[in-house]
Amino acid sequence: MKKLNERIKLTNSAVVVGIDPDIEKMPTDFISEYYTDFEVLYAFCKEIIDNVYDIVPAVKFQIAYFEMYGVDGIKAYAKAVSYARSKGLYVIGDIKRGDIGPTAKAYAKGHLKKGADLEVDSITINPYLGDDSNNEFFKLMNEYDKSAFLLVKTSNPTSDQIQNLISNNEEIYSYVAKDLIKNELIFDEEYLKCGMVIGATHPAELTKLRNQYPNVVFLIPGYGAQGASAKDVSNAFNGDGLGAIVNSSRGIIYAFNEYSHTLGQSARKATLKMNEELNKYR
Amino acid sequence: MKKLNERIKLTNSAVVVGIDPDIEKMPTDFISEYYTDFEVLYAFCKEIIDNVYDIVPAVKFQIAYFEMYGVDGIKAYAKAVSYARSKGLYVIGDIKRGDIGPTAKAYAKGHLKKGADLEVDSITINPYLGDDSNNEFFKLMNEYDKSAFLLVKTSNPTSDQIQNLISNNEEIYSYVAKDLIKNELIFDEEYLKCGMVIGATHPAELTKLRNQYPNVVFLIPGYGAQGASAKDVSNAFNGDGLGAIVNSSRGIIYAFNEYSHTLGQSARKATLKMNEELNKYR
Repeated sequence: MKKLNERIKLTNSAVVVGIDPDIEKMPTDFISEYYTDFEVLYAFCKEIIDNVYDIVPAVKFQIAYFEMYGVDGIKAYAKAVSYARSKGLYVIGDIKRGDIGPTAKAYAKGHLKKGADLEVDSITINPYLGDDSNNEFFKLMNEYDKSAFLLVKTSNPTSDQIQNLISNNEEIYSYVAKDLIKNELIFDEEYLKCGMVIGATHPAELTKLRNQYPNVVFLIPGYGAQGASAKDVSNAFNGDGLGAIVNSSRGIIYAFNEYSHTLGQSARKATLKMNEELNKYR
Repeated sequence: MKKLNERIKLTNSAVVVGIDPDIEKMPTDFISEYYTDFEVLYAFCKEIIDNVYDIVPAVKFQIAYFEMYGVDGIKAYAKAVSYARSKGLYVIGDIKRGDIGPTAKAYAKGHLKKGADLEVDSITINPYLGDDSNNEFFKLMNEYDKSAFLLVKTSNPTSDQIQNLISNNEEIYSYVAKDLIKNELIFDEEYLKCGMVIGATHPAELTKLRNQYPNVVFLIPGYGAQGASAKDVSNAFNGDGLGAIVNSSRGIIYAFNEYSHTLGQSARKATLKMNEELNKYR
């Protein structure tokens, strides 16, 4: 997490700009300049990156919005994550993968290996299959000096359905967090090499986990379009302003609906506003 | 599940050939005929498909082994799933996706929509985020007349870690199964439109779930290389020989290590042998 923490200090920001490109939601005059899905997707990502790379530590690409466009989409993802890394950003691939050992290893190679088409600094992983899955990601994460975030308590309304079932007086998400912390593969001096995904929409869980695990970085989705405010995440930060990064996707990349500026200018404006709001509570 | 059941009857087989192409494991004389990762991956898939399409109902593509090769890999995946469907096979994309509602919808469009690059007949989905995720897959599954399999009890050794925690006298995997069954979006007359993934390595759970849910199709991984035998899955079938399909990947696609035949001929031989073994217990 060293690269991430340096970037947080450099930009004095804990904002992650979430890039979830949906062509149907883009301005028609923007789309009309391009011929293929690949072109428009990449141009959209580049426009966002060029307007925020100097004011945020990180961007998070939601790969589903690229898979939606098939081969063209994945080509755009590869080019966009590479471009974002070239601008110095800490780049998270929000892939939420998890599988049996050999398969998890294949995913880890695809997304973390140096020189891979889809190489990013960090990925999100799903805990349902347990350590067989997690450990393959952690091993390659260590080998390639990367990081990851394990889904613990997600931001969506039905996250309770499985994650908040109680076993032995403890919620399932709490077991997931505890199992992670015990994993020797993620040990590091300051912040553990694997963080946790915890939704901003669950301030109580966020506060509880912050107190339990001070040396874990939280990746916090759910801000803005999903309903959470800066105050909801105020307990997520450590005294030094580190320990948490907060993602907003729709509230930034589609901010042109709110501001009378171009796509990129509106994204920058919305990001600066979110920086200011969050910094009040860091 | 109509297409799948028709194929099971037509081929008198419950075998799913799992296609997990790892170039490092392919015969060197096979690889040497091709120049790019795309070419070798697609050629490998085609060789397997051409040798098994008439003797099994279905193939399952593990997308991780394509993502491992980046854009070339996804190009090969798109061409291979399309080729497999053109041969009449019921094609499963083993993608294990799961995410918040709007994101799950993007995945569903990418993998189930008619005409999409990555279009398959069925996908695997991960339950950790609950119905927000599942329902988006089910809605598009219904719209496009497709099917899906929800991860319930996976085949890997650490599947117990989360899936077998006990809440209110019931294991987590059992809640996942129960929540699925209650979901109105998957209702169908004979077999529900969404099946369950249950590992062959857990015969007790397999038997229990078969008795509880007679009208659900089980997709059963873990046969062969992962350690389970035909006897282990014997209780998974209904009286009519339907209700379960059993996947073998490494035991079939890398059978050339065992037989002194070509890649394709060995895969066919291993598949016929597995058909025979399984049919003793169906």
